[in-house]
Amino acid sequence: MNKLLIVGTVAFDAIETPFGKTDKILGGAATYIGISASFFNLQSAIVSVVGDDFPEEYLKLLTDRNIDISGIEIVKGGKTFFWSGLYHNDLNSRDTLVTELNVLADFQPKVPQDYKNAEVVMLGNLHPLVQSSVLDQMETKPKLVVLDTMNFWMDCALPELLAIIKRVDVITINDEEARQLSGEYSLVKAAAKIHQMGPKYVVIKKGEHGALLFHGEEVFFAPALPLEEVFDPTGAGDTFAGGFSGFIAQSENVSFDNMKNAIIHGSNLASFCVEKFGTERMIKLDKKEVVERLKQFKSLTQFEIEI
Amino acid sequence: MNKLLIVGTVAFDAIETPFGKTDKILGGAATYIGISASFFNLQSAIVSVVGDDFPEEYLKLLTDRNIDISGIEIVKGGKTFFWSGLYHNDLNSRDTLVTELNVLADFQPKVPQDYKNAEVVMLGNLHPLVQSSVLDQMETKPKLVVLDTMNFWMDCALPELLAIIKRVDVITINDEEARQLSGEYSLVKAAAKIHQMGPKYVVIKKGEHGALLFHGEEVFFAPALPLEEVFDPTGAGDTFAGGFSGFIAQSENVSFDNMKNAIIHGSNLASFCVEKFGTERMIKLDKKEVVERLKQFKSLTQFEIEI
Repeated sequence: MNKLLIVGTVAFDAIETPFGKTDKILGGAATYIGISASFFNLQSAIVSVVGDDFPEEYLKLLTDRNIDISGIEIVKGGKTFFWSGLYHNDLNSRDTLVTELNVLADFQPKVPQDYKNAEVVMLGNLHPLVQSSVLDQMETKPKLVVLDTMNFWMDCALPELLAIIKRVDVITINDEEARQLSGEYSLVKAAAKIHQMGPKYVVIKKGEHGALLFHGEEVFFAPALPLEEVFDPTGAGDTFAGGFSGFIAQSENVSFDNMKNAIIHGSNLASFCVEKFGTERMIKLDKKEVVERLKQFKSLTQFEIEI
Repeated sequence: MNKLLIVGTVAFDAIETPFGKTDKILGGAATYIGISASFFNLQSAIVSVVGDDFPEEYLKLLTDRNIDISGIEIVKGGKTFFWSGLYHNDLNSRDTLVTELNVLADFQPKVPQDYKNAEVVMLGNLHPLVQSSVLDQMETKPKLVVLDTMNFWMDCALPELLAIIKRVDVITINDEEARQLSGEYSLVKAAAKIHQMGPKYVVIKKGEHGALLFHGEEVFFAPALPLEEVFDPTGAGDTFAGGFSGFIAQSENVSFDNMKNAIIHGSNLASFCVEKFGTERMIKLDKKEVVERLKQFKSLTQFEIEI
């Protein structure tokens, strides 16, 4: 079985959407990525940090899905990273109400020895120096390194971000961030500029409008599944990244054609994530539902024109 | 050969985008629909009205594409409908600067006798009473009636609009208009409500984010082709409608599976329309380019996951 190494936050989130609000619940990029990737045949481990206020049951939730948590440092007397956000009516935009870095402020990631030869590395959204440090610790060159990031790092750690972007194979980024990073409004031009920064594959996430995969002159598009109700978009991008990297790790095939499949798997899993608050839907999801919805993706997109 | 009957404006447009501006050029829904549909094997006719200020060369441009213009009334001493719009930087929104109805104000459409048995009727954006009058004049029931409309008629002629919506098979409408018409934010819910108003098929156009086709519980999605530069979106929706109705008329197959193909043909043709001002790109387009880009649509959307 192939190994997937995941780095990212494991955190508390408090979320408010037009449909309701939560107290502090389980969140964090690595949490969503790990749960999503657990739908594939692979071994996975998370590198992250929490405080000793982090509930045992949340950690058990990860180990129950065979996720190795030996790389999640628990800081005695420390407080877990906390994020709180308020979504606007259209759910496409949100305000960050609270960001308490807490134990994340001094985080030094430690990759478990067993995962220093992981085939796929998924660098979830975190400080670019933390992402770099994880890559530095690898003892064999991974078959694929995927990077997720956000505008926050473009604003306050651009040189470090550009340095890690140069080292990865795939970058996943949303449309506004792609525009900010490249200075180009057209996503086709933005992807071309980001290619020049290093990554051979550029994935641009457009939320409810789907995702684009660029590889040189080639483009692939996966729609988001049209849903009656999007309840809470939190974690959708990370769930997408977990499905993408998890499928690649399982199939061990980094061709462009297989990445198309990976994008579809990522979109498919993300379509469940948004149906409930936080990780609620993903935790109760079973593989049969995943396969059923994949069929919906096929009938949503496949057509028969002969050329 | 099947017949396609088109009703809609034939007009002057003056357009300003971030890339430049035009004087009065050829425009109008029926113009774009007719040019787009002319890429298929069919006979077509336009029902519309212009003033005697309308240049002979514009009419010749239509007849050169084998479009029957005997249903385009030329009002002596009348002035042609004129629309002027200014697109914002993202090209997704625009301000209407001028709307001069002119000869359109008293327009009584007259369907040419030869087209009173047309297999497909494309009711382009116009007053709902004009659209109704065209349907009233048909002597045999068309195989498919497609309606395009806009928010303007929802604001000022809603009862008349609802009456014509009840009589058509397919409605094409953009996302904001679907929300206004249905009172639902979710496009899935909006489509379900619009189904109840009459049309068995609901096409929701999302501009650069593609188009959705709903038929009961079934959904199909066609992306817009990612382009380096969108130069002028004017006429893209009409070009889409012309490709959709033109392909249906050619293939004479109104199954859901064939409508998927029709949506792709419509998106494909619309992707050319936006590359230049007005009808400029469509007029110079050849069938080889159309086929080449269809291949791009296939590789953009088709994947190999076996389920």
